[in-house]
Amino acid sequence: MATTETVHHHLRRHHDHHNTINTHLKQKTSSKSTRLAESLSNLLHLHIQGPAQESLSNARFEEKHETPTTSPKEDISDKWRDMHGSSDWNNLLDPLHPLLRREIIKYGEFSQATYDAFDFDSFSNYCGSCRYNHQDLFEKLGLNKHGYIVSEYIYAMSSVKVPRWLEKSRLLEKALGKDSNWMGYVAVSDDEESKRIGRRDIVVAWRGTIAPSEWYEDLKRKLDPIGPHVEAKVEHGFLNIYMSKSETTRYNKSSASEQVMKEVKRLVQFYKGKGEEVSLTITGHSLGGALALLNAYEAASALPGLSIGVISFGAPRVGNVAFHDELHQKGVKILRVVVKQDIVPRMPGIIFNEGLQRFDDIIGSLEWVYHHVGAELKVDVRSSPYLKHGFNLLGFHSVETYLHLVDGFHSSSSAFRSEARRDLALVNKACDMLVDELRIPQSWYQPANKGLERNVHGRWVKPKRNPEDIPSPIGEGHTLVPEMQNKFERLRALYSFKLD
Amino acid sequence: MATTETVHHHLRRHHDHHNTINTHLKQKTSSKSTRLAESLSNLLHLHIQGPAQESLSNARFEEKHETPTTSPKEDISDKWRDMHGSSDWNNLLDPLHPLLRREIIKYGEFSQATYDAFDFDSFSNYCGSCRYNHQDLFEKLGLNKHGYIVSEYIYAMSSVKVPRWLEKSRLLEKALGKDSNWMGYVAVSDDEESKRIGRRDIVVAWRGTIAPSEWYEDLKRKLDPIGPHVEAKVEHGFLNIYMSKSETTRYNKSSASEQVMKEVKRLVQFYKGKGEEVSLTITGHSLGGALALLNAYEAASALPGLSIGVISFGAPRVGNVAFHDELHQKGVKILRVVVKQDIVPRMPGIIFNEGLQRFDDIIGSLEWVYHHVGAELKVDVRSSPYLKHGFNLLGFHSVETYLHLVDGFHSSSSAFRSEARRDLALVNKACDMLVDELRIPQSWYQPANKGLERNVHGRWVKPKRNPEDIPSPIGEGHTLVPEMQNKFERLRALYSFKLD
Repeated sequence: MATTETVHHHLRRHHDHHNTINTHLKQKTSSKSTRLAESLSNLLHLHIQGPAQESLSNARFEEKHETPTTSPKEDISDKWRDMHGSSDWNNLLDPLHPLLRREIIKYGEFSQATYDAFDFDSFSNYCGSCRYNHQDLFEKLGLNKHGYIVSEYIYAMSSVKVPRWLEKSRLLEKALGKDSNWMGYVAVSDDEESKRIGRRDIVVAWRGTIAPSEWYEDLKRKLDPIGPHVEAKVEHGFLNIYMSKSETTRYNKSSASEQVMKEVKRLVQFYKGKGEEVSLTITGHSLGGALALLNAYEAASALPGLSIGVISFGAPRVGNVAFHDELHQKGVKILRVVVKQDIVPRMPGIIFNEGLQRFDDIIGSLEWVYHHVGAELKVDVRSSPYLKHGFNLLGFHSVETYLHLVDGFHSSSSAFRSEARRDLALVNKACDMLVDELRIPQSWYQPANKGLERNVHGRWVKPKRNPEDIPSPIGEGHTLVPEMQNKFERLRALYSFKLD
Repeated sequence: MATTETVHHHLRRHHDHHNTINTHLKQKTSSKSTRLAESLSNLLHLHIQGPAQESLSNARFEEKHETPTTSPKEDISDKWRDMHGSSDWNNLLDPLHPLLRREIIKYGEFSQATYDAFDFDSFSNYCGSCRYNHQDLFEKLGLNKHGYIVSEYIYAMSSVKVPRWLEKSRLLEKALGKDSNWMGYVAVSDDEESKRIGRRDIVVAWRGTIAPSEWYEDLKRKLDPIGPHVEAKVEHGFLNIYMSKSETTRYNKSSASEQVMKEVKRLVQFYKGKGEEVSLTITGHSLGGALALLNAYEAASALPGLSIGVISFGAPRVGNVAFHDELHQKGVKILRVVVKQDIVPRMPGIIFNEGLQRFDDIIGSLEWVYHHVGAELKVDVRSSPYLKHGFNLLGFHSVETYLHLVDGFHSSSSAFRSEARRDLALVNKACDMLVDELRIPQSWYQPANKGLERNVHGRWVKPKRNPEDIPSPIGEGHTLVPEMQNKFERLRALYSFKLD
C-alpha cells in the first residue's frame, strides 16, 4: 500500500491536470467504462420507477374517488327482449341505450371474473384452478351487486400434447388432473334481479386463455364440422377445447360441452317447470367469446325455443359462413363488442377462412373477408382521455379496457361520456393503459407478496388452499345427457380421446 | 356475404388442395403472418409464466417449511469484543465463527429493513418516505426478535438538481419537502439483548439507494476533503448526501450527519451516564455501506474511546488511502462482506482512485488498485445449490443474496452448510436468484394490488397513510450540536445550500 505521503503527492499532481485528464478520459473510456457505469447506474436505481406527472386530471380523478361507481338499477322487465337482441339491437347501439350499456357491462364483468379468479401461477400447486369455491366467487370479486348466483363450474382440456412440466408435476396432477383447467361457470339471476330484468337469466361465462402454451399451434390450422350438417364448420382448436375429455383427468371425465349443457338444461327445466320466463346469456372474452358461440350453437340445437343471446368481447371468428348462418337460423342473438384497435377480432390467422384461395389475400386486406355475425358495438381507444393511445397489443385487448370504453360510449360521433362512473383504476389491472397522470400502477391486480405468506416459523410459503376453495370433483359416474348422444356422437368419436 | 352454397364450393376446392396450399402458405407467408401469429400467440398466453420443474430439492425445501428459521440465542457477553473486531476478526472468518455468523446476519437484516420499509412507488404521495412509524418498524418487518428498539429516523438529501416531476408535485412537497428522503435509522439494544451481547449496542443502519436518478452523475467524479486533514478525502457524491441540508425541506433543515450524530451522542451519553458499556455498530449495503464509513469517521472523531464497528454489505470504496488510514488510526473496526460475483465492491468508476495516473489502468486491471480496508468476508454465489449461477447484476448485489450466502458459509474450502436455517424464499424478495425447483416467484415482496385498496364506493385507490405511519417532522429550531460546529464548519460551507 502506498504511504499517505506518496498518495498525497499523486493527488496534487492529479489535481493540477484535472481538466485535461477529464477530457482525455471522456474520449478514451467512452465505451468500456461507460457501459460499466451505465450498468451500475441502472443497478443502483433499480427501484426507481418512471416519474409521475401531476396534472389537473389527477385532481379531478381524486375527486371521483368519493363518488359511487354504480348507476341506480332500473326496472327493465318490459324492455328485456330488446336488450337481449329481439330486434338485433336495431337503434340501440348508436347512440347506445343507457340500459343496454349497463347490461353489457354486467356481462362483461362476468367475463372478467373468469380471469380475476383464475390461478395463473405456474409455481402454484393449484395452477389452472379457480382460486375460490363457487359459492364465494362473486362475493370475493365484489360482483354480488349484480344479483346472480353461481351454480356450477366448468372445466376444459385440450388434446394438445401435455407440456413436460405438467406431466412431471405430481402435485398438479393430484389436484386437477392432467391439462384440465377451470374454464368458466354457470350462474343464474336471483329472485330480485329476475324481477328487475323480466325473466330468469342463466349466464354462462367462458374464460379466454388456457394454460398449455402449445394450443395455439393446433387451433389455427383447420376447420372441423360441428354437427350433422357438413356445411357448418368451426375451428378445430376451439372445438377441441369445448369437446375434449379423458378418463385420466379428475375434472374432464366429461367435456366442457357436457358439463355446461347438463347444468343449463337442469336450470332451464327447473325454472320453466315453475312457469317462469327463462333466458340464456352466454358471455366470454377472446377465446372465451369463441367458446360462447359453440356453446350457443349447441344450446340452440338442444333447447329450441329458449331465448339465447351471446355478448362477446374481443372475440375472434369461430367458424365458416355456414356456421354463422345456422346460428342465425336457430335464433341465437349475438352482440359482439369490439375495440377498434384490438387486433384479435381482426386477426386472420386465428381463423383460417376457407372461402379464400390464398392466405396472402387475408394478410393483405383484412376488412373485406370479415363476416359480421349479429350486431357489433365498436368502441375506440382514442375516445377516452384517460387512456394512452400508443400501440398496446395487450391493453387494447383487455376486458377492462373494453368495459371502460363501453362505459364512456354514447355514440360514434360524441365525446367520452363525462358522467361515466366506472372505476378508472380497473383498466390497469393487468396492463398499462392509463395515462400516468392518474398515478395508477400498471398490472396492479395481484395478491400480496405474490401469494407467499409467513407461516408460524416465520418462513414464506405458499399457503395450502382452504379446502372449501378447492373445487370439488364432478361426481363419479357423470354420464352423458341422453338426448345429446346422437347429436354429438360423431364429434365425440373425433375429439374424445385418452391421454395414454 | 357469399351464400352458403358458394362458400361450400370454395371449401371443397380448398379441401382438395389442402396440403399443397398449406405448404405454399408456409413458404410465402413466413414473415408477415408469422410475426402476426407470434404476436397473437403471445397475447393470448400473456398470463402464462414459465414452466416450473419439480424435483427432489423442492420436496426437501417443503420439508424445511416446518422448521424454525432461527438459532437459539447464546450468551456472547464475554466474547463481544472479538465479535466486534477487537482483534480485527483474526481467525474468526475462515472458518466463520458460528456466533459471528449470527451477528453478521442480524446487522444485515437491519440493513435490509431500510429497503423493506422504503416507499419506492413514484405514484405514491409518500414516495421517498418510510412506510412505517419508527415505533412499528421492527414489528412490521418481523425484526423484533433481535431485541432492538428504533429510536430515530434519519433523512438525507443531495444537492443534485431536483427532478422536474418532483418540483411539480405539490403533494410530495407537502409531505416530505423537495428531494428529502428517509435514509435510515438509529436503534438501540434492549435490556435483554444488551445482557446477552455484553454491552448496550447502538445501531445505525443506512439505506443504499436514493430517489433522484441524477445523483450518480455527480458522485462518480471527484474526491473532497472530509475534515481538517487535507489528506483524507472521500467521494464528493457520498459526502454530499451525508452533509446536505436546506431550509426549504421539511426533513433536512439539518443534514443526515447532524441528525445521526445528535441521536448517537444522546444515546451514548445516556447509557454511559448509567455506567453501561456502550458500542456503536454502523451497517449498510451498497451506498449505505459508504455512508456507514463516513458516519463512522465522524463518530470516531467526535466520540473518542467509543467502540465503533462497521459491518457493510456490497459497499463500494469511499475515500482515498488517507481516509482509510485515519479510520484505522481512530480504531474503527470494519468488516466488509462481499459476494465474489458482485460488481459494486469492485467497480472502479464509482470511486475515482486518485493514486492512479490513468483511468484506463483501473478499467484494465481492477484487482491491484483495490485497497482492502479492515477485514473482508468473501462469499461465493457458486457455493449455494439453491441459487442460479448465471450472471445477474441485481441478484449478485442483493442484501438477501448476501445473507443467504453468509448463512451457508462455513469456510472457503467447505460446502454450503446443510444446517443453514435462513428462509430461502427471502432471496427472491426483489430479484430472481433462486432455482426454479424451489417454486418461489421472483421479486415477490410487494403489497397486495400494489397498494391499491377498495374504498367504500368500491373504487380502487391509494389509501391515505395512517397518520401514525407518517414520520413526524424534526422539530423546528433543530440546531447544531455545538461541538460539531468547528469540526464541520468548512464542510457545511461547501455543502450546505439553499434550493432557492
